[in-house]
Amino acid sequence: MNSSHPNGVNVDQLHATIHAVKDDPALAQFEFRAHTEWRSGAHVQTYVQGFRGVKQEDQSRTQPFVLEGDEPPVLLGSNQGPNAVELVLAGLTACLSVGIAYNAAARGITIEAMTLDVTGDIDLHGFLGLSDTVRAGCHDIAIACHIKSPASDKDIADLLDHVQATSPVTDIVRNPTPVHLKFVRDA
Amino acid sequence: MNSSHPNGVNVDQLHATIHAVKDDPALAQFEFRAHTEWRSGAHVQTYVQGFRGVKQEDQSRTQPFVLEGDEPPVLLGSNQGPNAVELVLAGLTACLSVGIAYNAAARGITIEAMTLDVTGDIDLHGFLGLSDTVRAGCHDIAIACHIKSPASDKDIADLLDHVQATSPVTDIVRNPTPVHLKFVRDA
Repeated sequence: MNSSHPNGVNVDQLHATIHAVKDDPALAQFEFRAHTEWRSGAHVQTYVQGFRGVKQEDQSRTQPFVLEGDEPPVLLGSNQGPNAVELVLAGLTACLSVGIAYNAAARGITIEAMTLDVTGDIDLHGFLGLSDTVRAGCHDIAIACHIKSPASDKDIADLLDHVQATSPVTDIVRNPTPVHLKFVRDA
Repeated sequence: MNSSHPNGVNVDQLHATIHAVKDDPALAQFEFRAHTEWRSGAHVQTYVQGFRGVKQEDQSRTQPFVLEGDEPPVLLGSNQGPNAVELVLAGLTACLSVGIAYNAAARGITIEAMTLDVTGDIDLHGFLGLSDTVRAGCHDIAIACHIKSPASDKDIADLLDHVQATSPVTDIVRNPTPVHLKFVRDA
């Protein structure tokens, strides 16, 4: 463990970021993006590269991340990538992981190891258009967060409460988030 | 275009699936999963492989999909993968793509090409713990859905309305979804 980078987190930079945002709230406005190209059937490829934050266009990524998306054969796909719900589950556990690592570092809590197992239960009557009452999405998402740490149960519980309250993806999933879709006809 | 697989979708299998679920609703109960291993700082690796559906454990994936997750340097990461919000945006556009391709096929609508551009606006005061009133997640998600198709504007609009109403990830994002987190102390 690097003492200036507990949990691999540059705590000096974290504090500097917090102070900078206190001085200039506009620094905290970010716009994240993704560009998805449909290939055929359930197969898509999504490109993630640029975003806007700290009042400028980020230039740090020299090439895009490419995410494959598909369905398994039982859902008429060809298994060229995880499906959309699995991507969201992965986003949720990634978000919690970052939040736990960063906030633990800020609190002086060492995380020696951490894994998260997430499950999302879904009734496909909604997706298949067979019910107006069954929701299309997951009716429950459950996460088991395994942490190895010398911190007390109380300190871990407080940490996890704070992280859940401040995790962007947890908020997106737990609470209503507006989605606006616009159709553009391509020639 | 394969006439038996419009938009690359096996419409016969789609109809067979719908009829099977009508006969046995339990076939529609699915459990999707992800396993995330935290590496250091913001870097995580997520493994997606098994799931439960049609009353059995799926065996079609012989190895896991591995998703890298990280933050960019401005958010204290090292750009080893997209961040958590970007993963969710990718899940949203993947879900809409699949829904559009499948439902268009079922309606006899040809999709010649399709791309989706999504943006998610977020104020990091929430994530940074600097505000109790600013939400942690996105305050708005906007999607431009570019479609090349011979279908009429009316038919495309009806299709997009139906897809948004039946898209699992759109529902997860737009509406409250319960997330339960359990702490497990590892030795």
